[in-house]
Parts: sequence; C-alpha cells; structure tokens
Amino acid sequence: MTPLSALENSNEFIHRHIGPDEGEIAAMLKEVGAESLDQFVETTLPATILGGTPLALPDAVTEEAALAELSAIAKKNVVARAFIGMGYSEVITPKVILRNVFENPAWYTAYTPYQAEISQGRLQCLLNYQQVVLDLTGMELANASLLDEATAAAEAMAMARRVSKSQSNRYFVDRDAFPQTIDVLKTRAKAFGWELIYGAPGEAKDHEVFGALFQYPNVNGEIVDLEAAIAAVKAMGGLVALATDPMALVVLKSPASLGADIALGSMQRFGVPMGFGGPHAAFFATKDEYKRSVPGRIIGVSIDANGKPALRMALQTREQHIRREKANSNICTSQVLLANIASLYAVYHGPVGLKRIADRIHRLTAIFAEGLRRVGVTVQTRHFFDTVVVDLGAKAHIAFEAAAAAGYNLRHVSSSQLGISFGEKASRDDVKALWTALVGDAAKALDVELLDQERITHLPKLALRSDAILTHAVFNAHHTETEMLRFMRKLQNKDLALDHSMISLGSCTMKLNATAEMIPVTWPEFGDIHPFAPASQTRGYLEMIEGLSEQLKAITGFDAICMQPNSGAQGEYAGLLAIRRYHEARGEGHRNICLIPQSAHGTNPATAQMMSMQVVVVACDEKGNVNVDDLKAKAEQHSANLACLMITYPSTHGVYEEAIRDICAIIHSHGGQVYMDGANMNAQVGLVKPAEIGADVLHMNLHKTFCIPHGGGGPGMGPIGMKAHLAPHAANHVVAPIDGPHRGQSAVSAAPFGSASILVISWMYIRMMGGNGLKKATQAALLNANYLAKKLSAHYPILYTGKNGRVAHECIVDLRPLKAATGITEVDMAKRLMDYGFHAPTMSFPVPGTFMIEPTESESKAEIDRFIEAMVSIRAEVDKVGKGEWPADNNPLKHAPHTQFVVTGAWERPYSREEAAYPLEWVRDNKFWPSVGRIDDAYGDRNVVCSCPSIDAYS
Amino acid sequence: MTPLSALENSNEFIHRHIGPDEGEIAAMLKEVGAESLDQFVETTLPATILGGTPLALPDAVTEEAALAELSAIAKKNVVARAFIGMGYSEVITPKVILRNVFENPAWYTAYTPYQAEISQGRLQCLLNYQQVVLDLTGMELANASLLDEATAAAEAMAMARRVSKSQSNRYFVDRDAFPQTIDVLKTRAKAFGWELIYGAPGEAKDHEVFGALFQYPNVNGEIVDLEAAIAAVKAMGGLVALATDPMALVVLKSPASLGADIALGSMQRFGVPMGFGGPHAAFFATKDEYKRSVPGRIIGVSIDANGKPALRMALQTREQHIRREKANSNICTSQVLLANIASLYAVYHGPVGLKRIADRIHRLTAIFAEGLRRVGVTVQTRHFFDTVVVDLGAKAHIAFEAAAAAGYNLRHVSSSQLGISFGEKASRDDVKALWTALVGDAAKALDVELLDQERITHLPKLALRSDAILTHAVFNAHHTETEMLRFMRKLQNKDLALDHSMISLGSCTMKLNATAEMIPVTWPEFGDIHPFAPASQTRGYLEMIEGLSEQLKAITGFDAICMQPNSGAQGEYAGLLAIRRYHEARGEGHRNICLIPQSAHGTNPATAQMMSMQVVVVACDEKGNVNVDDLKAKAEQHSANLACLMITYPSTHGVYEEAIRDICAIIHSHGGQVYMDGANMNAQVGLVKPAEIGADVLHMNLHKTFCIPHGGGGPGMGPIGMKAHLAPHAANHVVAPIDGPHRGQSAVSAAPFGSASILVISWMYIRMMGGNGLKKATQAALLNANYLAKKLSAHYPILYTGKNGRVAHECIVDLRPLKAATGITEVDMAKRLMDYGFHAPTMSFPVPGTFMIEPTESESKAEIDRFIEAMVSIRAEVDKVGKGEWPADNNPLKHAPHTQFVVTGAWERPYSREEAAYPLEWVRDNKFWPSVGRIDDAYGDRNVVCSCPSIDAYS
Repeated sequence: MTPLSALENSNEFIHRHIGPDEGEIAAMLKEVGAESLDQFVETTLPATILGGTPLALPDAVTEEAALAELSAIAKKNVVARAFIGMGYSEVITPKVILRNVFENPAWYTAYTPYQAEISQGRLQCLLNYQQVVLDLTGMELANASLLDEATAAAEAMAMARRVSKSQSNRYFVDRDAFPQTIDVLKTRAKAFGWELIYGAPGEAKDHEVFGALFQYPNVNGEIVDLEAAIAAVKAMGGLVALATDPMALVVLKSPASLGADIALGSMQRFGVPMGFGGPHAAFFATKDEYKRSVPGRIIGVSIDANGKPALRMALQTREQHIRREKANSNICTSQVLLANIASLYAVYHGPVGLKRIADRIHRLTAIFAEGLRRVGVTVQTRHFFDTVVVDLGAKAHIAFEAAAAAGYNLRHVSSSQLGISFGEKASRDDVKALWTALVGDAAKALDVELLDQERITHLPKLALRSDAILTHAVFNAHHTETEMLRFMRKLQNKDLALDHSMISLGSCTMKLNATAEMIPVTWPEFGDIHPFAPASQTRGYLEMIEGLSEQLKAITGFDAICMQPNSGAQGEYAGLLAIRRYHEARGEGHRNICLIPQSAHGTNPATAQMMSMQVVVVACDEKGNVNVDDLKAKAEQHSANLACLMITYPSTHGVYEEAIRDICAIIHSHGGQVYMDGANMNAQVGLVKPAEIGADVLHMNLHKTFCIPHGGGGPGMGPIGMKAHLAPHAANHVVAPIDGPHRGQSAVSAAPFGSASILVISWMYIRMMGGNGLKKATQAALLNANYLAKKLSAHYPILYTGKNGRVAHECIVDLRPLKAATGITEVDMAKRLMDYGFHAPTMSFPVPGTFMIEPTESESKAEIDRFIEAMVSIRAEVDKVGKGEWPADNNPLKHAPHTQFVVTGAWERPYSREEAAYPLEWVRDNKFWPSVGRIDDAYGDRNVVCSCPSIDAYS
Repeated sequence: MTPLSALENSNEFIHRHIGPDEGEIAAMLKEVGAESLDQFVETTLPATILGGTPLALPDAVTEEAALAELSAIAKKNVVARAFIGMGYSEVITPKVILRNVFENPAWYTAYTPYQAEISQGRLQCLLNYQQVVLDLTGMELANASLLDEATAAAEAMAMARRVSKSQSNRYFVDRDAFPQTIDVLKTRAKAFGWELIYGAPGEAKDHEVFGALFQYPNVNGEIVDLEAAIAAVKAMGGLVALATDPMALVVLKSPASLGADIALGSMQRFGVPMGFGGPHAAFFATKDEYKRSVPGRIIGVSIDANGKPALRMALQTREQHIRREKANSNICTSQVLLANIASLYAVYHGPVGLKRIADRIHRLTAIFAEGLRRVGVTVQTRHFFDTVVVDLGAKAHIAFEAAAAAGYNLRHVSSSQLGISFGEKASRDDVKALWTALVGDAAKALDVELLDQERITHLPKLALRSDAILTHAVFNAHHTETEMLRFMRKLQNKDLALDHSMISLGSCTMKLNATAEMIPVTWPEFGDIHPFAPASQTRGYLEMIEGLSEQLKAITGFDAICMQPNSGAQGEYAGLLAIRRYHEARGEGHRNICLIPQSAHGTNPATAQMMSMQVVVVACDEKGNVNVDDLKAKAEQHSANLACLMITYPSTHGVYEEAIRDICAIIHSHGGQVYMDGANMNAQVGLVKPAEIGADVLHMNLHKTFCIPHGGGGPGMGPIGMKAHLAPHAANHVVAPIDGPHRGQSAVSAAPFGSASILVISWMYIRMMGGNGLKKATQAALLNANYLAKKLSAHYPILYTGKNGRVAHECIVDLRPLKAATGITEVDMAKRLMDYGFHAPTMSFPVPGTFMIEPTESESKAEIDRFIEAMVSIRAEVDKVGKGEWPADNNPLKHAPHTQFVVTGAWERPYSREEAAYPLEWVRDNKFWPSVGRIDDAYGDRNVVCSCPSIDAYS
C-alpha cells in the first residue's frame, strides 16, 4: 500500500467486506498448499481462461466517499408528487416497519425459508400476507408473492393454458389493462406461440380463448361491471384473471365474488415505496382446485415432530424441483421482504385502519372529480375508486405542465385527456393545488370542505363489498407502535439470518450485505420516484443505472447491459429471448434447439420451454463436466437448428471446467449462441470475463454476486450482459422507452429497470470495492471454499474437483455413504446443524444426498472453523449411530432440531439434554433456538392449509 | 371526530402512542369505577389543582407531516466542515454501528442495567468501554461515562475536594483548558464556595490548592510537558486531573504515566456525531485507591449463582443510594448509548485501526502546518497532535472568511490568530483547500504528497506512548462488518428492552420512543453540527429549540426555558442555581435553607449541598404526603434564611397531594422559592401546569415525560422552566452565548443547549401528539396505573392512595408482609419476573421492600394484563413457599432467574424445569432467557474488577 492511499485509507471497505485478514489468508493458503493468492488462483483456474484483459474499474473508495458520490447522484432525482397511477402509488411506509424490517439486517439478510424450523418468523408473516390476499380477493389459495403485476399476469396466462380444457391458443386481454402488463403478455405470448386478442371485457365472448385478463378497476380508473364478461369466458372453458388493486378491494367486491378464477396485482401500495418500479410484491390468488398449478411459492401450515403447528413452504414443485422440460413457468423466487412489509402494513392498520385509508383516498378523489365537474370539466370516468380521466380538450397540455410546475406528476392519456390517481399521501391541499393547476382561477370557487359534506361517492353501490376482511386476531391486535414493534421482534427472533451466523448456501452466495450498501435504498430520492415519472426528474436514477451498467460491462467484458429482469430466472428469460429474437432477425427463426448439460439448474430447461425451444440434454462425465464429445455430437446433429447452449460457469458442481473455451467455440461453429448462467459468476469476477471466454449473453444475480441481500427469499435482480450483436434484441418498455438499439422491443418485466431501487446496493458494492477489491474478494471466496473443502475432506468425501484437486467457490460434500451405512440422511444432518447454530448448506442440489457448501469471501476463518468443527462433530455423532452406541431411530440427528421445549420437557433419550442443545461448548455462547421441531412436510402436503388457521385450530 | 380531521387522520399518531384503544379504555374505566376519562380525572386529581388555563398547543399532526415540518427546519442548518476543535470533532460513525445500535430500539429503548441478569449485552459493551478508557489513560479504574467533558472536570474538582488532605479551598485551572470547561468549573466552584486560580500549568506550584486541572493537549493544540507541574501539585497534597483527548492518547503518553490522578475527557470522537453539543459520553478514570469516591456508575465483574462470570453495576453509591446530605455530587446517570457506540467503535477499529486513524489525523495536521510554515506563516503551536494555532496578523479575519466561504469552520482565537483542528473526516483535499483559504495563491507552491514524503511529525518524541493498548481479544476479533454485526447482535440478544415487553419502572416512565421521533436524530443536518458553529449555520437548531421551548412553556405555564442541563440532576442543579442567583441578586444571598420532604429523591439533598444550602427535612404523614404543619413550622423557623422548597409532584409516592397549592403559598410567604422536581411531570401534562399551582422553577426529564429513550442508561435531557423573575439567572454559555436576560451567566454544561441533537425527539413527540394527544396520554397513564393498582390490590397491598383511593401515574405494591411471612424478598420477586419475561418495576424506592409500578400510557391493556397475571402467579408461588409446599431456600423464587443452562442441566429441585422456565403458558410464545443466573453483588464488591478480565480469568 502506498503512503498516500494510507493517508485516506481508501481500501478500508475491502477489509470490512472480506472475512479473512492477511494473517488468516496466509494460514489458509498454507493449508491448501499455495504460496500466495495469485499463485493459488493460477493453480486453481484453467490456464485457458486466465490472462484476459485486466479489470478496468477505478480503485476502491471509502464508505463515506461512495455514499457522498451516490448522494450527489440521488439529488439529481426530483421527488415530485406521483398522481400517475398505472399500478404505482404514493405510500406511507409506517416508520416502525421501515426501521425495524426494511432497514434491519435480521430481516433483509435472511435466506429463503427452506429450513423452516429456523424461519418461522417470516413464514408467519408470509402466511399473514397470504391471508390478506385471500381476504381481499375472496380466493381460496394465494401464493407468497410474485415479482410484479405484469409478470404475475403472464403467469396467470401460462397457468390458464396449463389448466384450461380449451384447445385455443388465443388469450383475451382487456385493452384497458395497464400498458406495461399488456407489453409483458405480448412478449410471453409470442415466445409461447400464443395469440393475444385485445378488446373491452364485454367483447371477450366473441372469441374462442383459453383465458382472459381484465383489469379491475382499469387503467382509467373505471370500475367496469365484469360479471357477464367473466361468465362468458368461463363458459367456453377459459380461465379469467383479474388484475386488481388491493386498496380498491378494501371497499370493492372481491374478484372471487365476480366469478374470476385468478386475482393478481401489486401489493406496492401496502406500504412499499415506489422505488422507480420496484421491488414490490405481486400477489396471485386462485381457487383451491388449481393448487398444483399455482406459480411461485406457497406457505402452508403443517405440524412438527411434536405435533405442534408449524409453517413451511408447501407444494414444492418449483425451485430445485422445477418441472424442467415440462414447465411453462420458470419462476423460482418471490419478493419476501416486500410481501412482509405489505403483510405488516395490514397488521398495523388492521381492517379499520385500511378502511379509513381507502375511504380517505376515495373521498379525496370524489371531491376532486366533483369539483372539476362543477366548473364544467368533463370527468370521463364514471365509477371509480382513486383514478379519474378528465378531458380538458386543447388545454390538457397546459394543465399537465401547470401541475408539473406545482410539483405534481399526472398521466398524459391523450392530447386532450389527463389521468389523475390519488394515493395514501394525498391531502385536501393536493386537491386544491390540482384544481388550480387544471382549471386556474375557476378553482377559487371550489371548496373541499363543502364538497366533502355532500358525501359524494363514485363507487357503484353494487360493486361495494359487504363481507368482513382481516378478521383474524393478528390483524386486530397490533395497532399501537409498541405492540407492533414487539410483534415484529418476536417474529425476528424466530429466524436465523446472516446477523447470527454463516449461511453457506452453495450457489446462493450469502455474503455480506453491507450497511453502507443498504442505506441509499431508503433514501426518498430513490424510494419515492414513480417509474413513469418524466425523464427530467429521474436523471439521478439514469446516471446510477448507467454507472452500474458500465461497472458490470467492465467486469463481464460485455458490450451492453439490460437492467430489466427482476430475478435470476427473469434474466435467463431475457437472455434467451435476445437469442431468439437475434435468430429471427437474421431469418433463422427456425433455430430452436437448446443444448443443456445434465447438471444444469432446473430453471434452464424451463426457460428454454418458455421460448418454445426444444431442450436437448448434453451428457456430463463423472466429474460433472460437460462431455465434450457428446456436446460436439449433439451440436453437429442439430447444427441447422441449433439455437444455443445454456451453461453455468463454474459448473453447478463448483468446478472450473477446463474446456469452457472449446465448448463455446463448438456452439459458435454451428451458428449457435452461448447463454451463460451467471449463478456462479462470483467465481469469475476480477479473474475472468465471461464475454472473453465465449459467452454471448449472461445473466447476473445481483442478489448473489453483487450483494443485494436475499431478503428472506427476495427481492433479487437479474440483469443480462450481451455482446453487441444481441443488444438490439434486449427487452425495452412501452410506457417509458429506454434509449438504445433495442428501441421498440417489448418488455419482460413491469418496470423499465426492474427493481430499480435496489440497484444502488450493487453500485455501492462495486464502487467501494473497486477493481482491486473485487478481484481480491473472488480470490478470498475461492480460498475460503478450498480451505473448507480441504479441512472437511478428512471427514467427508468431497465430490468433483478440478485442476490440482481444487474446487472453485463452493464444494460438494457427499453424505450418501454415511446414509447407506447408518441410515442418517442429509436431512437429519441439515436439521442437526441448527442445533449447532448453523443454517444448512444447499441440500441435495445438484446431487441428491449431498451438501453444497459455499462460504463466500465474507466469512472469517474463525467462522469457517466453527462450521468445520460442527460438521466434524456431526460426523462423530453419525459414527456413534453407525457403531450402535445410539439407536438408529433415537439419536440427536433423527430428533434434530431440538427446541427449548423439548430439552426442558420429559426426557427419556439415550443422549443428554445438553448433548441435544449444546453439542459443542461454544454453542452456549450464542445459542439459537429453533422455534419448532422438525416439520412434517408430508402431513402438510396431505392437509394443505395455506391461510391463517382459526384460533380453534391451535387449541 | 369531525369528518374533516378524518380526511387527514391527523390524530393517527395519538393512537399509535397510547396503548389502550377506546374499547380497552372503556373496560378499564369500568374496572376503576369511573364513567369517562374526564370524570375519572376529576375524581382522581385534587379539585384545587384542576381548572387551570387550557393547554394552548396546536392539534396533533401525522408522523409524515411532523417529519416534513422538522425536515424543513433541519435544512436551515448548514452542514459545514468543522475544524474548530475545542472538544468536538468530525467523526465517521461506522455505518454498521449507526444502523444496528444507534438506530436500533433494542439498544436505545433499554433501561439502566439495574437488572443485570437481563442486561449482560450492554454491560459487556460498557466494560469494554471502561477498558478502552483504562488503556488510553493508563489509569486503574474508569467509570461507565459521565455527561460531558466540562461536567466531568467539575466532578474531578469535587472528587479532589473529597479525597484531598489539603485544607485549601482553592483549585488551580489551566488557563488553556477549554473555555466552556473553565466556565462550568466557575459555576460549580462558586456554588461550593471554592476559589479558582488560573494560570499556565507551571504556575500551579506557586499556589496552595486542593487540586488542579490541566488540559492535554491544550485548547491551542499544544502538548505541554506536564510532569513537573503535576508532581508539584501532588507534592502539596492536591489531586491533578488531566482533561484529555482519547484520539491523541492513541499515540501520546498516558495521563497515568505523567503522574495524573484523574483523566477525563470526551469520547465523542470515537464515532459519536457532534450533534450541536451532544449527547456524548465523557470518560473519567482514576486510581484504584479512589474507587469509593468516583462519581458516576462503574461496571464491574462478579459471579452469578452458578459461579460463572457475570457483570453488573459495581459500588452502587449513587442513584437511589446517593449519599443525600453528604454528597458533593448529584450525578445519577451516564451516557450509556454513546459510551457503547464509542466502545464498539474501538472494537471495530481495534488498536491497529485506531492507530491508523490517529496517525492519519496527525500526518494531515503536520503537512498542513508545515506547508504554512514554508510559505512564511507563523505556526504558534510547537508540539501538537491535531490542532494548531497560526498567527496571520491582520489577515486573520479575511482568512477566516475565506475558509468559511470554502465550507470550513475554524476557531477565531484572537484578531490575529486562527485555530485549526483536524478530525477523522479530514483528507488531503481539505489540507489544500485550507491552504488556499489561509494564504491564497501562495498555496499553489505547496504539495501535500511531497510534504508527506518528508514524514514530518510534531509529536514530541518524549511524549509518545510505547505501551500496547487494546490487547484484549475483543478489540482484535471483530474487524469485518460481518463479524461486527454478529458481535453486536449477540450482545443485543442478551438484553431485555422495550422491544420485548413492558418495563414498568416507577418514576422512570418507560414509554414508547416512537420511530418517527428517533429518525431525525441521525439526520446529518442535526448530527454533523459543531456546537460552536456560527449562528448563521445553526438557524435550524435554534428554531427547533425555540419551538420546543414554546411547547414546554405552553405545557408548564412557565415564562422561560433553559435548555442546557443534560440530565435530570443537572436540571435540579440549574434550577437551584437560578434560585440562589436570584436571592443573591436581590441582596439576600444569606438565604440558604432548603426544605426537602422526607420522601424526596436522593438527588434533591445532594443538589442542595452542591449549592452550599443547608438541608432541612420536612416530615411526611403516613400516606407519604408532606406534613403541612411541620412544613409551616420549619418555614417559620427559617423564615429569614429560607431559600427554597424542593418538592416532587405528584409525590414520589405516586400521589397527588391535595395541599400542593397551600404548600407553595407557605414557602412564598416566607420569601422562599419553590423548586419542583419534574420526575413525575408526566402525570401533569395537559391537566395541570406546575407554574399555575405554585412552582417557580421545574426541571423536566425529557427522557421520561417527553419520550427521549433511556438508551440503556442515558442520554437524557433536563431543561428547566422558570417564572420570569428567575429567567435572568439561568445558565448561559461563554463560547456561544445565548440571547436573553441571562446573558453573561456562567454555564452548567459543556454545550449551550446540552445534548441538543436529542431535543428533536421531544419536539416530534409534542408536535405529533398535539395538545389533544398530550392530555389524553396523561389520562391514559393515570388510567393504566389505576387499573393495574385495582387489579393487583386483590393480591398485594397497595401503599399510598389519594382522593377516592386513586393513585396517580404509578403505584407502590408492598411486599414486606410477604417477606415477613415467607422469607421471599422483593429481590426474589424481581428476579422471578424475569422468568416470566418481564423487567422488574422500581424496587425499594421510595419505600424499602416494595415495587413501584408505572405502566405509562403506551402499554396496552393486553400487556398490562399479562403483567398482572405474572404478578398474581408469583403471589401464588410465594404462597406455596409460605405453606411449606416448597422449601424456603429451594424454590423458583430463590433460584430465579433461571438460565437455559440451568434448566437443561442436572435437576434436583422440588419444582419442574418447565415451572422454572415457563411458569405461564404464554411465556413459551416469546421466551426471553436471562443470560446469567442471579448475580452475587457481594462477591463483586469484595473483589472489585472493573476492567475486562484476561482470558485466563474465564477459564
């Protein structure tokens, strides 16, 4: 380090992010038999991929400097009032939720709740979320959220196709649905080969379709009477989805009562900031009969080993279990953090509070509309909740500008029409200001108070709901801040997150989500921006996104970045879409063969299916590497129709395949494109650039490699990098088009830049690490994994190694021999790890009966050593079973995890309470108690309950 | 509620703050036999005090509206760079500490750690803090913080007087100490009747003094060689205190090695924002021989019932145990939250990181000074760490303005001299900018990099420390953000705070500290302001403080507010000081009799002592009320010399004395003043105004009544309200004088407005509650207390009730009969409450053998009912002991609290593990485990250890 950099300590953050310090690195290098980090890398990575162009990024800066830089950028955003509507609304995030959930690492650093016994807090919160959706929609089954309203609509269309008996390949779309929803449907339908029919809901009956989507209330705010239209579509065997608004549903009849099969929409306005488009939770609810076809995750009630109620993800048909070649959805994730905020928003306000908010919004809208009417303005929307379209003729443009000058963004519907939508922040002052903007001096004659006394409503009486909502106790008990805080803390305490211990999830890269990275997310300059705000107000966002794009280009070597996909699977979809469009544009639309190695993630074939590609599986050798001969043979066989290869690098087995350059060359030689799955991109950053080793397009999991936290199971972001030839084929946006060669392309997600507000996290990470820090992070991640593999190898077989017996950033521990010898399963061992205070690694992926362990660079040697100690201790426990010291069915592994209630209750086991709870001495120092015993998944699947149980059920 | 207020729901916060909702209020009114809240108040408060002028405050506004209003005010502050020095320095609060401690209710809502078994997290953190102080100062014993550097210096003076053998009443003060420190010493010395001698340290030897204070480095940055001066004072039996700087001590010789007896200073620059003066922790360290004389709290190591190490407050001579009439200090509290931040700052940076920071600060200062020297500027400070004074002759003023224009605040030392102090945020760019400001174009010849290469230092070699600091493991293990986060979470999990359950501390008013109140505290516009910044930059602060003053005037009825005292005891001091100065100003300086009722807080007589007043105790009747006849007699007896009465209202027994107006009238008729102790002011707000019932001056505990959180044992604020005649006698400030009739008066605290940054909390609270909400809060507090008293009265005797058998805002439960009958003590019951998940109420104050319970208005009926259930269940347990079902020495009460280790270990007790841990079924739902068993205080007092034990000690 030069004296001058020491003068400012610009590398400080690097050392805060990377776990092992110099001394620990030296010790670990010794353990793995390497001399230096550089020499370690040279002896771990294939020579064929090393030696690319250096990482051209500025050096690291301090947290303060990066925050100051980003703050200056943020200030280029103009926080105006958003009366645009179209699915995004001003909200008030209750401060107690903001601080204690949204800004709390105990919530945002948690992983997806696969290990349900140490995730009951967020599972409870998600079950409440489902209950909110059920109550509002009147449906029988709700999932735990999807990515956004537009993709939820696309999932509804795909589900309709899965379950409809209709032979049609046509789908009806409400022409007054949100334009961005229509745009995403367009993309999806085209790729599936389905045809979209547009029209007013009443026209649906004139078409043979497998389903329909109506918007309720529609984009213009109109509450259309949909019952007849719905019945007509259903009569022909189609499924009807209603895209709807949860706040409107507080007062309006539920979609189920109108006859709909599916209800979907955005829960954004339940307390989640607009964030220039996201992240928000989309809701999705349907009938019980379709429960095996619902996209996304569903939280369900089951029982634990002690017969007590316990929650877990139900009906696990997705994720690692995704239905590969049969799928017409690739959705893996959800928006847990945001769904939880929405859930807690409902808990905090309760039915009475929500009604008050909804009533207020409607009253203000009605007063506003009535005022305009009184001064002669044509209000075109007849029945509305919060949105009206007014016709101002030639004056519309002037009025729009006057509103803008007063700080209000409206929707420009046409040259003569403006749309105005009211949100939770609206006040009588806003009504007055908008009157003045729209009608000038005529507004002086209007009086909010007088109009309010007339109790005007524009909610059609017949459309009002009369059933009670949110009657469960949880929605009627936590309405003071004190009660709310304690409720959230109680939930928090049930969950193990990164703030407690290492979560060594192979492939999921649970590394540090630094506070300095998270802070800007909740700055109002990023949070309170409508995605369709005028470009003059979003310069800060565009500069930040452009900056992140440049950073990612430097890291990957690609020519262009598409920042729209809001999950990894969405990134895959966007990537394959670009390839498909590229072939089509060159007149090679017939290329439809997608090669996928045996070892691939389940989403890969699902995504190919969604692109109407035919999946051809390429064999792997015993090391998990692609069988190059088989690849060559398949590529030759399908040469004329070869669309692409989908490949993960390093492989899903955690190995740097030596042949990666050859593999890419083979594909290219047959006219195919190489899609690289970026799940393991964190093992390349700073060392290798995907674009230089042969990839044409790659998706990046910003929530893995670039520090967006997992949020307990979402949000994420999956932007793609592309070579220049694919850039014209990236997703764009119909409402807020993005400059570039892809102008005019339809979208993959609802918002132009996906979940834009969390992009700041990755921006901050890259800025604070700099080129030097990123490279070192990758080196440390590799070293941590190899150190861990080396140490564990004395106790467990390590599957799959590459050059010099090294693994990449993760390693697979084979538990099958132990299971064969003792009957102790990988599940037993995963649950037993909880007793030691650890979250299990990835289990049985990619190989059944294994753990895939990824420590990441952020874990210190001390923490990794603790984990190793736990694994070694567990091995000794398994051996005790093997030797018959403990019965095969009565030992701490089979009974794991142990709750505090079990170890303080009656005890007749061949091991002690203390062996159960504190198997190693240091466990006592920071004991984490699983809140329920081992969960009986089979029971839950036999008795599917995905709503809040009534009080009786618990007694 | 009118339709229009519903349109904006401006009362929303009131319902978030107040626990019981309308239904619960109705049920509780019924229980206490009242018809309505108003009728309840009329039948509870004496008619003599009701019916004053109504509370003239605006109505409530929403959280959003109040935050917007305060944000607009905050933006009137100018965040400039602070190179002023004088004890306040720019810092970087590590973001992980900012978010997870400073902004985390688990830390800031905790109470003072009297119940040590459920406070081990912050006790550990405070022990580390003491260790940091010990290491830096080289002393043998450090306390857990004082209020600010100036009052710490005053405490050092008072301690010197307590322990010095010298007969002198003179104290020597370094003329180059901080002027605000000298000013506070002046106030204190005068009140005590001591004389201050000012001079350079070398001149101390020429005076007979009982002690001396030197500043090291001094206000001008000079590191004076103090060894001879220290030796000289000690030779005459005086004690020497060094006021010093912890960052300088990272590189400089320790005060102990120079021979000092006491070292003190501010830990602000260990990560705590300047906040316009506070709150910050002041440190105080001395020799082991003085341990019984140390002011403030000390954390010490002891053992628990299981023989394991456990921490608790040692040597409890203060607080309720304050030495009443013998005291020459009234300090009760400390700055726990800020001390913890400083402690964690040291943990996060460790010795290497701190050295790097200190070196960087000095290098920049040295480069800066050397550069100026090269271009011919006279740098007057010869040996310095971070501060220099330069003589610019006639150009000083221009240079000062040029620096200001460039965004830098400097210190104006004299018409020709400027002082420049470097802090943690300083960079080479700052050096360049300051050069340019000071010498204009001449700066172009200067080069930071070249000068840096010369490795200039201005630290005198002989003054450099050579001993190792922070060698304990805790300072060498948590240097990555991941490790740090987990370390802080581990500590957090050991502590029970308001985020877990009710803390019904009588007299301490542990109510909601709402998030919206807390958010502005960490806004940079409030955090990053130097207390001596030019007034043009602090308009926002002044407006906020003025606004809060107006709010408090409206609430209390007083004419003036002094916002300087930074604790309740400081408020008492400031109040009595105003009375003393008032009498003196009228030529009645002989009035020195202070009447204090028997039932008073211990601080009252201590404060009177500090004012050189003679305490005369007034008897109380069996109900705890002042014996009016005795009062009358004593007032008459001392009529000529009567200075004042100190009285708490409602009384410390939680009763509204009927005679309060008469009592005040008697005092006034004898020329005395009435000082009202505001500890119980929360039972008056909105119902009664202290000024209207007879008080002349009152201190308000903003950390009780007005929602500043207790922070685990500080910070607090104790402003005073005064009638107009006392206003000219309030504290003012020598460096940053405050406008008003008190101009020229000396100070009681270091900063003009005390801990100014936390005043925003009270401002927000009052703004969001409005007049209507504040009144209702008091009503609800009274109702909650009376409901609880009524329900408990079937199981425990309630001591002291007023009109209609009602209590005020708290009630005293008498445990003495049970103790007499069964041997179960109040301590047993307090500890047993922990097993139920509750923090004990105030124990044995004001009456030994009792609990004083104050639920506050923020607790819901559900929580109060849970607490009642626990108390009833404990009563049943005591009865079991009484009936002999459990042995007197072997039962869950005597063994309480039960740790998880005890209930999972060997068990041979007459009650079950489950009875131990889950005495009621609902305890299982949210079990809080005390992290250690009952602490052996006697052991700790016999073996005083107040530093981090070495590793060996734990094994």
